[in-house]
Amino acid sequence: MRLYAVILCGGRGERFWPKSRRGLPKQFIRLFGPKSLTEQTSERIAPLCPAGRQLFVAPAEFSGLMRRAGYRRQNVIYEPAGRNTAPAIGLAAACLHRRDPEATMVVLPADHLIEDRRAFLAAVRLAAGLAGSGKLVTFGVMPTRPDTGYGYVQVGKRIAGRGRLTGHDVLGFREKPDSATAKRYVASGDYLWNSGMFVWRVADILEAFRRFMPGFLAALARFGRHIGGSSEQAELARLYRAAPSISIDYAVMEKADNVAAVRAGFDWDDVGSWPALARHFPADRQGNVLRGDCFALDSTRCIVDSDQGVVGLLGVSDLVVVRSGDALLVARAPDVGRVKELLKLMAAGRGGRSYL
Amino acid sequence: MRLYAVILCGGRGERFWPKSRRGLPKQFIRLFGPKSLTEQTSERIAPLCPAGRQLFVAPAEFSGLMRRAGYRRQNVIYEPAGRNTAPAIGLAAACLHRRDPEATMVVLPADHLIEDRRAFLAAVRLAAGLAGSGKLVTFGVMPTRPDTGYGYVQVGKRIAGRGRLTGHDVLGFREKPDSATAKRYVASGDYLWNSGMFVWRVADILEAFRRFMPGFLAALARFGRHIGGSSEQAELARLYRAAPSISIDYAVMEKADNVAAVRAGFDWDDVGSWPALARHFPADRQGNVLRGDCFALDSTRCIVDSDQGVVGLLGVSDLVVVRSGDALLVARAPDVGRVKELLKLMAAGRGGRSYL
Repeated sequence: MRLYAVILCGGRGERFWPKSRRGLPKQFIRLFGPKSLTEQTSERIAPLCPAGRQLFVAPAEFSGLMRRAGYRRQNVIYEPAGRNTAPAIGLAAACLHRRDPEATMVVLPADHLIEDRRAFLAAVRLAAGLAGSGKLVTFGVMPTRPDTGYGYVQVGKRIAGRGRLTGHDVLGFREKPDSATAKRYVASGDYLWNSGMFVWRVADILEAFRRFMPGFLAALARFGRHIGGSSEQAELARLYRAAPSISIDYAVMEKADNVAAVRAGFDWDDVGSWPALARHFPADRQGNVLRGDCFALDSTRCIVDSDQGVVGLLGVSDLVVVRSGDALLVARAPDVGRVKELLKLMAAGRGGRSYL
Repeated sequence: MRLYAVILCGGRGERFWPKSRRGLPKQFIRLFGPKSLTEQTSERIAPLCPAGRQLFVAPAEFSGLMRRAGYRRQNVIYEPAGRNTAPAIGLAAACLHRRDPEATMVVLPADHLIEDRRAFLAAVRLAAGLAGSGKLVTFGVMPTRPDTGYGYVQVGKRIAGRGRLTGHDVLGFREKPDSATAKRYVASGDYLWNSGMFVWRVADILEAFRRFMPGFLAALARFGRHIGGSSEQAELARLYRAAPSISIDYAVMEKADNVAAVRAGFDWDDVGSWPALARHFPADRQGNVLRGDCFALDSTRCIVDSDQGVVGLLGVSDLVVVRSGDALLVARAPDVGRVKELLKLMAAGRGGRSYL
């Protein structure tokens, strides 16, 4: 079995505005040290999928970004439009199938942070084994808090592995829960965060598309005949015009009966917000996480990220302060997830000109 | 009687950091429209003291600033060190006395905001009349709130003027009061804010120095003999090395028995803080005063001053956010007066390098 990594590089960059922008979204900025999350994702899987077996799926508008970051044209599939994860995964599967019909693919979002690489690779190996017996394998993450921002996977009988790393039947997928339900999920131990990482044989996922999205699979097969030809780009555009915008969870995983879950024995964070990001950095005694040339007096639980100049905090609490390029955000930490609304207000105030 | 204006341009620029800096203090920045407070002060008094009869007293370190702002060397006295108001006023009086022994001087801090110019000039005329009979005249401002940040002048019998503009005996000077005392002062109607503006004959203030600071007056007289000579700068440095650092209120006004007060019929603000400044600008419906390219969502009673880029506020209240040059301040509005402490912390954190 040959393993291929499919690294999904979509994502618009709103959540970390103004550090992330439309032209430089989260997965390409250096949130942690000298490497972007995309680079870290690529390096993390490299022992199982070396560079030659890594395929990146990115929006066409990121082509300059990808080129500047050193990704070679033949390793990147550019989507002409954003259509959520199902079309992206289908497209990658079709390309891999053409190259290697026996391929097994590891689907990895580019913007997740996993620090325990050894445990991550062990989990991928276990998942690949399950995929070898025809399973569509998802990675479930042990929840560390009753988060209402994730979907959950309910797991059943153990079918592989042992100790901290086990494979399970899947009893069902659950939408983002309310707070009480989330608490119940976490207490039960049987519900895992649905991480958006998957392993399956290319042939099996295409078969699942045939069952659950037959129209899309037919269009995909048609597109496949043009890969490498002069009409490839035109056919790709045609494929995407007709493709539904849908996640792989809705389109396939919730319907298929050959689904399994690996209970991931590694740390995992999709770093979906400034407070989530700040958890990965040391705080001062007052709970402030200060990045850049920052000073805080009588200030508590603030998050500052400044790419220039000096920042002084005085008597403030629970703020997120981000200075990046020409823009500055000052938000109450619990409200920072609403930055999209602020961006809309800003665009409206300036005749539609976006600050993203 | 010839009136001369003495405009005091000291002040270090800490309160409005980072918009004001050591090299560009409050009185030289354009807080209100296209003119600095110093320019506004000069223009306000010009009908009574035209440019040729205006003398600026500034710290020597501001010489570049003064030159760039167009002030001519012969109209500026540069103090070799900061020694509070008494030495500055004594020095100006000595210079004026040499030029015109009959001079009457109007002492005006450069950083006060007065918008009713007509009432201001009327008050100066009334004060000049009182000065003509040998009084040392201070301007008292009708308090608009029980402010604990000002000293107060207790006034007695009316001795000149009528209606909104009257001159009074002074019953005493009071230090910055506590809150209860300030309320009592304001309720009584007899206590006025001690504004730091004065009118007196040069001969009279020098006589007061002779009585209350005889050592300084002797040094001043000695310095006076070197004015215009090659040793002037060296003698000035010598004068200031020995001069006590003391305000004219402590040194003279609280001790003299020929003091009068003009109850000023004009608006007055020494603009001592960001909240004080913000009172002069229109607020949005949520009470935010936003200067620069700013947007506020679900934010109330914030003050933003940004000289570049875009600023977004999200879910915050009662903040002062100042972006100026390379520096950014985010402060809780009631704490912003403590910016000096923050500056000390910042300097300590960087081996003494000041951000002021």
